[in-house]
Amino acid sequence: MKILIKDIMTILPDQREKFVVRECNVYVEDEIIKAVIECDKKKDTRAPFSDKTADYVISGKDRLLMPGIINSHTHIYMNFMRCCGDDLAFNDWLFNTIFPIEDKMTDEDAYWGTKLGLVEMIESGTTGFIDMNLNMNSCCEAISEAGLRGIVSRGLVGSGPDDEGAIKRIKETMEAREKYLDNDLIEICMGPHAPYTCEEACMRYIADLAMEYNMKVNIHLSESRDEIKNIKKKYGVSPIALAERAGLFKNRTIAAHCVHLTKEDLDILAENSVTVASNPVSNMKLGNGLAPVTEMLKKGVNVALGTDGAASNNTLNMFHELSVMTLIHKGATESAQCISAKEGLRMITMAGAKAMGKEYEIGSIEAGKKADLVIINTNTASFMPRNDYISALAYSCNGSEVETVIVNGKILMENRELKTLDKEKIFFENEKIMNRIVKK
Amino acid sequence: MKILIKDIMTILPDQREKFVVRECNVYVEDEIIKAVIECDKKKDTRAPFSDKTADYVISGKDRLLMPGIINSHTHIYMNFMRCCGDDLAFNDWLFNTIFPIEDKMTDEDAYWGTKLGLVEMIESGTTGFIDMNLNMNSCCEAISEAGLRGIVSRGLVGSGPDDEGAIKRIKETMEAREKYLDNDLIEICMGPHAPYTCEEACMRYIADLAMEYNMKVNIHLSESRDEIKNIKKKYGVSPIALAERAGLFKNRTIAAHCVHLTKEDLDILAENSVTVASNPVSNMKLGNGLAPVTEMLKKGVNVALGTDGAASNNTLNMFHELSVMTLIHKGATESAQCISAKEGLRMITMAGAKAMGKEYEIGSIEAGKKADLVIINTNTASFMPRNDYISALAYSCNGSEVETVIVNGKILMENRELKTLDKEKIFFENEKIMNRIVKK
Repeated sequence: MKILIKDIMTILPDQREKFVVRECNVYVEDEIIKAVIECDKKKDTRAPFSDKTADYVISGKDRLLMPGIINSHTHIYMNFMRCCGDDLAFNDWLFNTIFPIEDKMTDEDAYWGTKLGLVEMIESGTTGFIDMNLNMNSCCEAISEAGLRGIVSRGLVGSGPDDEGAIKRIKETMEAREKYLDNDLIEICMGPHAPYTCEEACMRYIADLAMEYNMKVNIHLSESRDEIKNIKKKYGVSPIALAERAGLFKNRTIAAHCVHLTKEDLDILAENSVTVASNPVSNMKLGNGLAPVTEMLKKGVNVALGTDGAASNNTLNMFHELSVMTLIHKGATESAQCISAKEGLRMITMAGAKAMGKEYEIGSIEAGKKADLVIINTNTASFMPRNDYISALAYSCNGSEVETVIVNGKILMENRELKTLDKEKIFFENEKIMNRIVKK
Repeated sequence: MKILIKDIMTILPDQREKFVVRECNVYVEDEIIKAVIECDKKKDTRAPFSDKTADYVISGKDRLLMPGIINSHTHIYMNFMRCCGDDLAFNDWLFNTIFPIEDKMTDEDAYWGTKLGLVEMIESGTTGFIDMNLNMNSCCEAISEAGLRGIVSRGLVGSGPDDEGAIKRIKETMEAREKYLDNDLIEICMGPHAPYTCEEACMRYIADLAMEYNMKVNIHLSESRDEIKNIKKKYGVSPIALAERAGLFKNRTIAAHCVHLTKEDLDILAENSVTVASNPVSNMKLGNGLAPVTEMLKKGVNVALGTDGAASNNTLNMFHELSVMTLIHKGATESAQCISAKEGLRMITMAGAKAMGKEYEIGSIEAGKKADLVIINTNTASFMPRNDYISALAYSCNGSEVETVIVNGKILMENRELKTLDKEKIFFENEKIMNRIVKK
């Protein structure tokens, strides 16, 4: 399909300023951005097609075009658990609330929970994500039906290659990998859950398999002080050092959380080009604290942003995450300059693309890249007056301004109408699940 | 007008749990909540009127009724400056960005900026606020046209009773007081700006006048470390101690910010029953830091919540403020329990009502109180599944779910359609102002 988005204020990458905003015509053909032509150079003959030959023309009046947002760490299926375990400390939350619910969860529950998360993501402009779940088939099926771009992992726990359960879960991963090998949108990666649930021998086994099959690794590291203390006691090193020792970082790795880090941890992350998916809302909500994002950025670590699951956030709205992230680091360091709106925008777009290993395919609006695009209504109180579009994205938007979402050249939402998901049915099924297994 | 809101999940005050949610019928007659009757007691003959005799019946299906939100500290006119001075340190922001813009601002600019802020407030469920501005007449006119409930102050700066400028500004205050003395919705209070702009002699003069005319006091205190250092150097005491020494606290006072406090400051605030209007987003965004909200609450200080102006927030959306406030204190104290969703909800309703000195009139849904009510659509991704309405308000809502807003028994927004404000005209005028005096 040929889509022409006309005369739209567009966020473009810029080497010096990170981003600039220019009025453009943007041409999409099939899954590719064919051309991005600034309006003051409109007579440019590079335009690959015209108003008349486009299948679909979208007016850019009072609209902003931004790259699709990437949520670098989430557990989408958890959406059916939204608001079921709030104001609880991490261990109480995880072991006494979430795990008992997950024990009762069926594949179908995970399917509907995932679909609810996908509704929330599309409605708030997220086009790509990195997920960890417990029910590969049903989660991947839901994602595939929705049409988002995802890197998906089965959470892997266990003691090692002699642990039948661990081997079963790894097998689920490898089967999904096989199934989605030629899929444009879904990529399967290894998901060793965390050092406190996946022992070193298990991590080592997973690391070797990931290397053999050229798979990325998605893991939780150094999320709570308890975890760090216990891992240090058990293995003599920090969770980060343990993951390195187990060989995980030989693969392209996304490490979620990384809240409490030593100087040595920072060096390990930087030297191994590990992407850190920071989850400020979840980390604060569970009382785990504040990650050293500015220090990581100074070290050159690729820091992306994630919401974590809806059971600990409680939303997958990345506008909320972006705003909270930029604010808390300014507050904690008492420096208004420490993370700018543009740096925040980079983290939810380009850094997210890099986390997905797709920095040459997505993350910015450039000819030749995949068409993962978000159109935002700026004729709204949150943007008015339009002094600075990027500041508004970080500090005054709430995500409800997102109007149209395109992934891989396909329109998933148009004027807030979802094209691939049946919202009412999804809401209905999620309330049913809640009544069955969550409701206290 | 008689309004019946039928079969609606309603947030009710509760002595033991702070709030409970029950399905109710809520009856509003003129400006008063006539009755709140739980649906399982529907046959209750206390119902003051029926479906048939109501002028207006609102269905509560898939809706939540909450008390109108109170924004305890803002500068509404600043909305035309949204996103014009971001990622700047406090002094650079205030003295080199905001003050030069204000120097060029006319009464009409303040009028339209205020109207934009009022749009944003109504659209995100705010029904009452405490404001400080520079253009009393035009701000009060805008507020009056919109129909919100406000305590309004003219920012007072100067050296003392011999300062002609100071006297002129105080005169503007007293004239507005006279004008709005019998107004149901607008109350004028004294607004000594801050110890670094309003000298001790001036504060003392204002304190005496406030006492004589039974006026509340609205002031910024201990916002930045620089302020505290400079005041200590000039006066030998902290800004809080100085305000007490000048006699301001003999009046009912709302002190905004209070970011950095000594133990003595905390005692002064508690002993004088000063309300603190905490502004977490603004304080973080300007790099001023994090207020000791949990310590203040422990001391019994009435802590309410405010957005500050849109030039430093950059939104007047109290759902954003609520979420950020609950999160950052959990994060900073590394305790998930430190401020609960219910405590947060109390701060934006009952504590706000107390800040306004109207705790017996507004702040909760109870028969006999004024009808300041917000109806929220819960058939939305952010609420689904509906495990816990109050958690959703604090952690997953973004304000766009607000659908209908009633102030003093009058519908100001119905199904997101504004009844008292012309949004397109307001947007147009604000962009004009921006182009004239803000745009760099």
